[in-house]
Amino acid sequence: MSDETGASPPVPPASPAPPATPAPSAPAPSGSAPERAPGGSAGGLTRRALLVGVGAAGGAGAMFAAMGALGLAPDSQDRNYTPPQPSDFALSGRAAASVVVLGAGVAGLTCAYELGKAGYDCTVLEASDRVGGRNLTLRAGDRLDELGGATQTAGFGEGVYFNAGAGRIAPWMVTMDYCRELGVPIETFVNNNASAYVYTRGMTAPVRARAARADLYGHVAELLAKASDAGALNRRLTADDRERLAEFLRRFGDLGPDLSYRGSTRRGFETWPGVGEGVPLGAAPSLRQVLAAGTGRAVTMDFGYDQATPMFQPVGGMDGIVVALADAVGRDRIRTGTPVTGIRNLPDGVEVTHPGGVVRADYCIATLPPHLLARLPHNLGAPVTAALRTPVPVSAGKIGLEYGRRWWETDDRIYGGVTETDLDITHIWYPSHGYHSRGGLVVGYYNTEENADRYAGLPHDGRRARALTQGKKIHGEKYRAELRSSVSIAWRRRPHVEGGWVRWPSYEGAFTLLQQPAGRVHFAGDWLTHLIAWQAGAMESARRTVTELHHRVLRTTS
Amino acid sequence: MSDETGASPPVPPASPAPPATPAPSAPAPSGSAPERAPGGSAGGLTRRALLVGVGAAGGAGAMFAAMGALGLAPDSQDRNYTPPQPSDFALSGRAAASVVVLGAGVAGLTCAYELGKAGYDCTVLEASDRVGGRNLTLRAGDRLDELGGATQTAGFGEGVYFNAGAGRIAPWMVTMDYCRELGVPIETFVNNNASAYVYTRGMTAPVRARAARADLYGHVAELLAKASDAGALNRRLTADDRERLAEFLRRFGDLGPDLSYRGSTRRGFETWPGVGEGVPLGAAPSLRQVLAAGTGRAVTMDFGYDQATPMFQPVGGMDGIVVALADAVGRDRIRTGTPVTGIRNLPDGVEVTHPGGVVRADYCIATLPPHLLARLPHNLGAPVTAALRTPVPVSAGKIGLEYGRRWWETDDRIYGGVTETDLDITHIWYPSHGYHSRGGLVVGYYNTEENADRYAGLPHDGRRARALTQGKKIHGEKYRAELRSSVSIAWRRRPHVEGGWVRWPSYEGAFTLLQQPAGRVHFAGDWLTHLIAWQAGAMESARRTVTELHHRVLRTTS
Repeated sequence: MSDETGASPPVPPASPAPPATPAPSAPAPSGSAPERAPGGSAGGLTRRALLVGVGAAGGAGAMFAAMGALGLAPDSQDRNYTPPQPSDFALSGRAAASVVVLGAGVAGLTCAYELGKAGYDCTVLEASDRVGGRNLTLRAGDRLDELGGATQTAGFGEGVYFNAGAGRIAPWMVTMDYCRELGVPIETFVNNNASAYVYTRGMTAPVRARAARADLYGHVAELLAKASDAGALNRRLTADDRERLAEFLRRFGDLGPDLSYRGSTRRGFETWPGVGEGVPLGAAPSLRQVLAAGTGRAVTMDFGYDQATPMFQPVGGMDGIVVALADAVGRDRIRTGTPVTGIRNLPDGVEVTHPGGVVRADYCIATLPPHLLARLPHNLGAPVTAALRTPVPVSAGKIGLEYGRRWWETDDRIYGGVTETDLDITHIWYPSHGYHSRGGLVVGYYNTEENADRYAGLPHDGRRARALTQGKKIHGEKYRAELRSSVSIAWRRRPHVEGGWVRWPSYEGAFTLLQQPAGRVHFAGDWLTHLIAWQAGAMESARRTVTELHHRVLRTTS
Repeated sequence: MSDETGASPPVPPASPAPPATPAPSAPAPSGSAPERAPGGSAGGLTRRALLVGVGAAGGAGAMFAAMGALGLAPDSQDRNYTPPQPSDFALSGRAAASVVVLGAGVAGLTCAYELGKAGYDCTVLEASDRVGGRNLTLRAGDRLDELGGATQTAGFGEGVYFNAGAGRIAPWMVTMDYCRELGVPIETFVNNNASAYVYTRGMTAPVRARAARADLYGHVAELLAKASDAGALNRRLTADDRERLAEFLRRFGDLGPDLSYRGSTRRGFETWPGVGEGVPLGAAPSLRQVLAAGTGRAVTMDFGYDQATPMFQPVGGMDGIVVALADAVGRDRIRTGTPVTGIRNLPDGVEVTHPGGVVRADYCIATLPPHLLARLPHNLGAPVTAALRTPVPVSAGKIGLEYGRRWWETDDRIYGGVTETDLDITHIWYPSHGYHSRGGLVVGYYNTEENADRYAGLPHDGRRARALTQGKKIHGEKYRAELRSSVSIAWRRRPHVEGGWVRWPSYEGAFTLLQQPAGRVHFAGDWLTHLIAWQAGAMESARRTVTELHHRVLRTTS
């Protein structure tokens, strides 16, 4: 890879790899550089420290070999993916090529990491001053700039973090495999909490999720059980079926012997059982009241395949994943603060320009968001530009609200999970980690589309005020009074990202076109998958593109 | 407190308190003494180490004062419990009494801990060689004896533990408050996992919980939506209600526009979405097949108030709680290996005999299981004996199966949670901690009553063989082939416990009688609550009894 650098922003030297770096085995001090080691179990860090040491000394290929020896390489849950390996070239007689990767988000880092396993000479150009893209964890002292000039600095206490972007991982996702492979410790993310609240249609007081569920299920079970009892299902069901159905419905709805729902201990208690038998919550609402309350969305919130309970998160912050990837790639290969200003296919390579110079390589993988790629000067052709303009950026926003005491645990007995609302804040997330520690951070809104735009249009103070006004409807005055600090993000205003994710009007045409390389420029990103907005999408796309590029190199006469 | 000790088993000296003990800030080496520091977060241990230091130097009263200063004392989630305090005596002009506590299980330790806050002179007599009772965590080298002479020794690898008794905590339980107060770090216990299996009625292959749920809900929603559509609910519901019901049912069952259920991505995938849209699991079963499969119990398993998702566990093993309690009580106050052989009310105190001598105190709190108390010689009267004989011991058993690799994570994508079966193993629990570590321990059965008796009747090898035969139906040959070690417990055969818990034929009479003291002998235990089989029951009962005893002391002319 050649690099014609003029006067430039700070750019670390290109390879060769430096001597083994110290293992990132201790949490970084707060307020330091953006890439930090995540907190976590000693076992995970030790393993990771070992791998990082191997990677720094011998490159990702050596690291992967070491992982194999440790039994850490992904095993039987293989998704038909075989990483490029140095031995592939021994068989083919060809050699690893140079690749310039645009963007050090999850897709870009995964591409460089996977290509590095076979000795590809990768350079990653990242416009921002930190790696990770939408995998963004903010800690004390971190600065958050917005398009338009607004700036915030996180004033969190020690140990408090805010996953401002990606926040959870489903167990079937390849993200879990990368955590395992890279030694990033994970813990349970509570996605569904019976003790959290549901707040809909201007309720005077929120209801607990357990009560909303018990009431909906109870009444639905009663309706169906009685319809069946009255013969309404006789044409569809045999007597045996009806008996089994009744057995299920009694259990499902906690129905009485007469098939009626009259409340249930499942709703919770005024006074929980102890020495005494407890005092159940007051009378259950009627069927009509339950249907009018509109709690159905909340009760079914984890039914989808992507959000089913349980989910997971890296210990210490989501950026544990991108920190580990960047360490494995080699920090010397990643140039932050380097926005790409142009892409050109050449007869024998690619040329990528940035304010500090030009990078030439055999191939390019472009992982920037498509709407940003579409704006870059390039010679990839008008159909590519049109295709890149096709997906529609989607707004998304979050606010992190830090409190000095965990009132949601001590007062509300909510340990992790999500309160669902039909307010414009949509959700309130409670932390699934650091239980019983002194303070913590609640996500005061995680919203999208119009709701996100409404908050994005306000300065941070206005977002905070609105989020507090809404959350106070659920948690009362302490929600406002005890706030310690806050940070909000509007992803449409995030420089070099400009969106939460994208939506394809259809998966025909443009989507298919961009799966193919444009000359020597390949594309990768969650936006090129059916796992949009998930890190797993970025990783799956990276694996696909790396495989395609590697096979191309193996069959090309260079 | 006087102690007339003859030749005796190893008994630590009675008070005064020794100088401050070293803080238990590092995990104990495997195979060492039964009371160990739990693993856990540095923050939790640091805090706890501080408190233990304070407690050892100044007693529990000083420790509690220190907790108040640290902001750790339980706050607004108060259950109308006020711990005894030294200042209570200043006001009343009376003095703390001596109390002999029988049993160092959760109830006994909590009694001694709470009484210690006000300076009571407590001595805890424990028959077993370790504290905790049914809070029992086994690690490498731990020996497990059974009545009848059978003995096992846990051969687990480093870091592997088996919660052979209490295994999970609901967030509303007072157990959480004790974890907070004592600085015992907690983490999420996954009680419901959409990726776990359901195995019922001799299925040829297990189904994933997510599929069982989607199919049941889908068909039930379709039945009710179509019944409503056909007018069967018109007398009970207005048109508005029916519209809202239909909206809910579409969401609840993932119904098609024609209100039919024809499968759903909620069931899961053959090939999960990624670059491509994924290949859903094969066709959904019919309504009849779903009803015949009998998966309803599994699908509703976390609907109850006591097992609703999420639940929690101490980091590093459940015995973190009893270790912290015992440290706070003061190890010098706890005499393990000291089985009680008699209890006598005296005119001015109580006298408790054990093989090594006699302990005299002002009061006694008896926390042994009622069926064991009933067997002891005492002078408490025939009605007390009859009452103690009333509750019926319930059998419960567990087996811990250790594997050298976490195939349930890598092969099955099951991270924590429970597979529900109608086999005699009932459940299989996967660990909710140590994700992605090299090996781990699965609970191969957790069963009760007849199922537990069936396993209890076998030697350990037989239990293991049967558990493997059953589990193989779900997980295949690896379940047997990759087993590394195992330990099983039959609680009816556990010396000094002899049961999983008890069942009261009714909560009248005997239950009420034993809430009252018999002379100077008070009772406490989960068996005296409506939270039987939960540590929270033991703690709530202890709080009640301590309060009662303290008030008695405050109003007694001594």
